[in-house]
Amino acid sequence: VTAEAAALDAQDALAPLRKLFKLNPATSYLDGNSLGALPLGVIDAVQRTVSGEWGDDLIASWNTHNWIDLPVTVGEKIAPLIGAQAGQVLCVDSISINLFKLLSTGLALRPERRVILTLSGDFPTDAYMAQGLAQLLGPDRCELRRVSADRLHTALDTDVAVLMLTQVNYRSGECYDMAALTRAAHEAGAVVLWDLAHSAGVVPLALDALGVDMAVGCGYKYFNGGPGAPAFVYLNRRHHDVVQQPLSGWLGHSQAFEFSPDYLPAPGVRAFQAGTPPIISMVALNAALDVFAHTSVAAIRDKSLALTEHFRELLQERGLLERLECLTPEEPERRGSQISLRHDQAWGMSQALIEAGVIVDFRAPDILRFGFAPLYNSFADAVRAADTLADIVREERYADARYSKRPAVT
Amino acid sequence: VTAEAAALDAQDALAPLRKLFKLNPATSYLDGNSLGALPLGVIDAVQRTVSGEWGDDLIASWNTHNWIDLPVTVGEKIAPLIGAQAGQVLCVDSISINLFKLLSTGLALRPERRVILTLSGDFPTDAYMAQGLAQLLGPDRCELRRVSADRLHTALDTDVAVLMLTQVNYRSGECYDMAALTRAAHEAGAVVLWDLAHSAGVVPLALDALGVDMAVGCGYKYFNGGPGAPAFVYLNRRHHDVVQQPLSGWLGHSQAFEFSPDYLPAPGVRAFQAGTPPIISMVALNAALDVFAHTSVAAIRDKSLALTEHFRELLQERGLLERLECLTPEEPERRGSQISLRHDQAWGMSQALIEAGVIVDFRAPDILRFGFAPLYNSFADAVRAADTLADIVREERYADARYSKRPAVT
Repeated sequence: VTAEAAALDAQDALAPLRKLFKLNPATSYLDGNSLGALPLGVIDAVQRTVSGEWGDDLIASWNTHNWIDLPVTVGEKIAPLIGAQAGQVLCVDSISINLFKLLSTGLALRPERRVILTLSGDFPTDAYMAQGLAQLLGPDRCELRRVSADRLHTALDTDVAVLMLTQVNYRSGECYDMAALTRAAHEAGAVVLWDLAHSAGVVPLALDALGVDMAVGCGYKYFNGGPGAPAFVYLNRRHHDVVQQPLSGWLGHSQAFEFSPDYLPAPGVRAFQAGTPPIISMVALNAALDVFAHTSVAAIRDKSLALTEHFRELLQERGLLERLECLTPEEPERRGSQISLRHDQAWGMSQALIEAGVIVDFRAPDILRFGFAPLYNSFADAVRAADTLADIVREERYADARYSKRPAVT
Repeated sequence: VTAEAAALDAQDALAPLRKLFKLNPATSYLDGNSLGALPLGVIDAVQRTVSGEWGDDLIASWNTHNWIDLPVTVGEKIAPLIGAQAGQVLCVDSISINLFKLLSTGLALRPERRVILTLSGDFPTDAYMAQGLAQLLGPDRCELRRVSADRLHTALDTDVAVLMLTQVNYRSGECYDMAALTRAAHEAGAVVLWDLAHSAGVVPLALDALGVDMAVGCGYKYFNGGPGAPAFVYLNRRHHDVVQQPLSGWLGHSQAFEFSPDYLPAPGVRAFQAGTPPIISMVALNAALDVFAHTSVAAIRDKSLALTEHFRELLQERGLLERLECLTPEEPERRGSQISLRHDQAWGMSQALIEAGVIVDFRAPDILRFGFAPLYNSFADAVRAADTLADIVREERYADARYSKRPAVT
């Protein structure tokens, strides 16, 4: 570790939070943007729910342990982390499923329009779900249009019902200007749907203040809720009268336990519930969110920018930015919490890094991602990652025959 | 306990399996049709996944611990329990969400037809999801029709694309004739979608042999997968070329990790995957299913019928069938694994039973359900339930003022 990194770690106010996580001291885990590390509090919470609640109290737990309220409880815990007042966030299903609900609602909010506009190059599930909806509704009622960022403003025409954008791009780590783009959507008469998968928990958000219409986000990245943790939806209160979503399952009914024959949506975001939620996974996320009581997203963002800035400098000093293309913007406000590098041998580099204890990930066909989770990553992690990558590049270890074949699941 | 029940328990080949579950010896748990009891093996499996896999191996666990395969792994474990050959069952999402996928596929299988036909009085989420789809598609493309059982054959006309039925009714416990109704649907040119929520794991099923087109089922009732455990879908192999489902999330893509811009469905049932699955909840279900390695659904069914028959006789002997209306058919082949009784004071009775340690449930407005889970219920449980109910009725304890107000969540 360099003296500079040691000094930065010594003065890091978030450093004590690292001990709230289970981490292998032999590795530097730089993949919290894919799967957040395990908060130690989750272990007990899950154990208690499985053995104590389910095991001992069985069906009564839906009431006595408030399982039935968990989608709201967890949603309300997330709300202040994304700049939302109470009553607008629900923890439910996956991002994919929730996009379908929100896109349907968005089309219902702009019945005279039929286009879903999005950026090409966002995480594919967003476009796939819009394709599924468009195919189901047919071209007279829904069309997905994808454009590059430079064509976005031109494409925001009077056909656009919903502008669907991801705040931080999963490949480049670029952070888009939510205020400006939300304003542009509204000026064009569209509603805006933000995917916060790579920003919730690490970028300060002000959904209410910006008048954002709708958002989805992820429980298992910077919220550390565990593999496949349930996702969340946000719907601005001003649209609560017009929730229209076709995945109208029984728990989204206004009186689910009356078992009435016709669907009558619960008020507001509660109508986004569908089936019975996976309680054990939801309890894990609920416990994981308690870590945020020790700090603020603003403090997390400060450290995030310091970490990625420091890492970028280290790459520069080691001559790596001449060998690999940095896709992540240099300006702090345009940067998420990762540094993405492009190289033809990115797959081999990712594998050599992992073998050396620097856990990163790879995105096909040629991107190496270094994700920084300020709740548990240190400046020493950044030094180790840069030094290890420098070694691998210098020694051409990425070209090892073991890395010649890339598996289908990366 | 009566001598007869003691003798039945003594000769019960499934009795030793009770020790595989965490059960409170002070209660008789007769609500496994709502939430199955906790198999002890689940405790370790969940702990290992949370602390050992997620905690220690983090993102690598998707491959090294085969998380990515879990939807298929669990699906294949369920397959033999429902009479399905390999490659046709997937564990994914909730029943509600899965119904939307299958109903869409069903309409695509019969493009010249537009009616979803179902029975009134089935669990409401089935009709709600069909309503959501019908409303989204509009009356030219989809209409939900609900009829009573006696009108079903007449209503099976040439407009019907999908006949959606639940094998065992959640209120009455009536078990419908899957062979005859599947044949009737096919003779009318429709495809059939069976909801197995109250039959999978407790009624022998032969989906392949009967040529059933599609099915959904529940992970948290007789499969004991834990609260809100993921559900499953079955799609008969002969339809695998025409899977068309609009919830086209990234994990249902044929090459998810290529992150290609356009959705291309994975082959067969894998296309029913959408978002990232809740791994911790899925691991619990995976471990719970291991209990079935010790027995067969046929043996479970034999004991189920013996339990419900015995309970019915006990009710009869105690004069209770004159005081409460038994909704569950007497003929064994028409009976699921529960006995449902109707009474104006059913709510008070359910609460008095629970206070006396007999855990049953109530379904609005007036139904008392006694669910029998042969993996852990005994004939002694049946005696205790009948005796306790007899006491409550004789002493009119159901009329206690504490039970006068029924909460919204029951």
